[in-house]
Amino acid sequence: MSSPEVLSYVAGFLDGDGCINVQLVRRKDYRLGYQIRPSVTFFQKQKHRAFLEWLQSVFQAGYIRERKDGMSEYSVVDVKSVDQILAQLRPYIRLKQRQCDLVLEIVAELKHSSRLSPQDFLTLARKVDVFEELNDSKKRTIKSSQVAEFMGVQHILIP
Amino acid sequence: MSSPEVLSYVAGFLDGDGCINVQLVRRKDYRLGYQIRPSVTFFQKQKHRAFLEWLQSVFQAGYIRERKDGMSEYSVVDVKSVDQILAQLRPYIRLKQRQCDLVLEIVAELKHSSRLSPQDFLTLARKVDVFEELNDSKKRTIKSSQVAEFMGVQHILIP
Repeated sequence: MSSPEVLSYVAGFLDGDGCINVQLVRRKDYRLGYQIRPSVTFFQKQKHRAFLEWLQSVFQAGYIRERKDGMSEYSVVDVKSVDQILAQLRPYIRLKQRQCDLVLEIVAELKHSSRLSPQDFLTLARKVDVFEELNDSKKRTIKSSQVAEFMGVQHILIP
Repeated sequence: MSSPEVLSYVAGFLDGDGCINVQLVRRKDYRLGYQIRPSVTFFQKQKHRAFLEWLQSVFQAGYIRERKDGMSEYSVVDVKSVDQILAQLRPYIRLKQRQCDLVLEIVAELKHSSRLSPQDFLTLARKVDVFEELNDSKKRTIKSSQVAEFMGVQHILIP
């Protein structure tokens, strides 16, 4: 467990330049066709990679990759680690509370049930829809309606 | 004096999304023709203006203005306040130490001598040149060479 000073520093950095997110990702080999993927991400120019390595050592989770645009990216996507990181940072976050709380809520469901029912999965997927607005995302994201349509076509979801 | 947790939060935010800077500004009414202007700046979308007001209450300095591009900007430019703010944040800063130290160095000179000699002013102006590189600034900034040229033309500086 890190010190309050380290955690409040990281919370400040996250509020300023980090990203709390959750996305629907198409997975052809998944039972329900989609994955709900929470993430905590930090970016820096490659010359500051050491800073990302420090963050990684604080959380003991996630991986760093070099992007083609000259940036390094540190991301944590596994459900248990995202849960632990956000639970620790939550008391210090001042701008991204809504993102934090919503991911914690979704992650709690994902953690406790390895096999969500299609209906429960869809309920969570609707919560994911909120993120595009919260993060002012410009990227095209997969919507819960698309998941619902897929489930309908595949006869996974009985209406 | 703010708590270590608040200061480390703000240091994290500053490292992520804030700006420590010092610039040469043309001032026709100034004795030496130019001002050395240190600054600490934070930006947020206007919907998060309350966050900038909180920062302002932490430091009891600076002003907030609404920009035309939909952002709010909180900046501190008076020498004494910049000195106090950076001195408090310095122990917690992890990425912008060089900017912080250099501004503290420049500000110490500006604070103690209300009338710098042209030669001393030029020495400080040369330290300002470093900032463009440190901050990866894309803006056109005034260089110390320009100040030196002005002083030469005006016969302020005796070579």
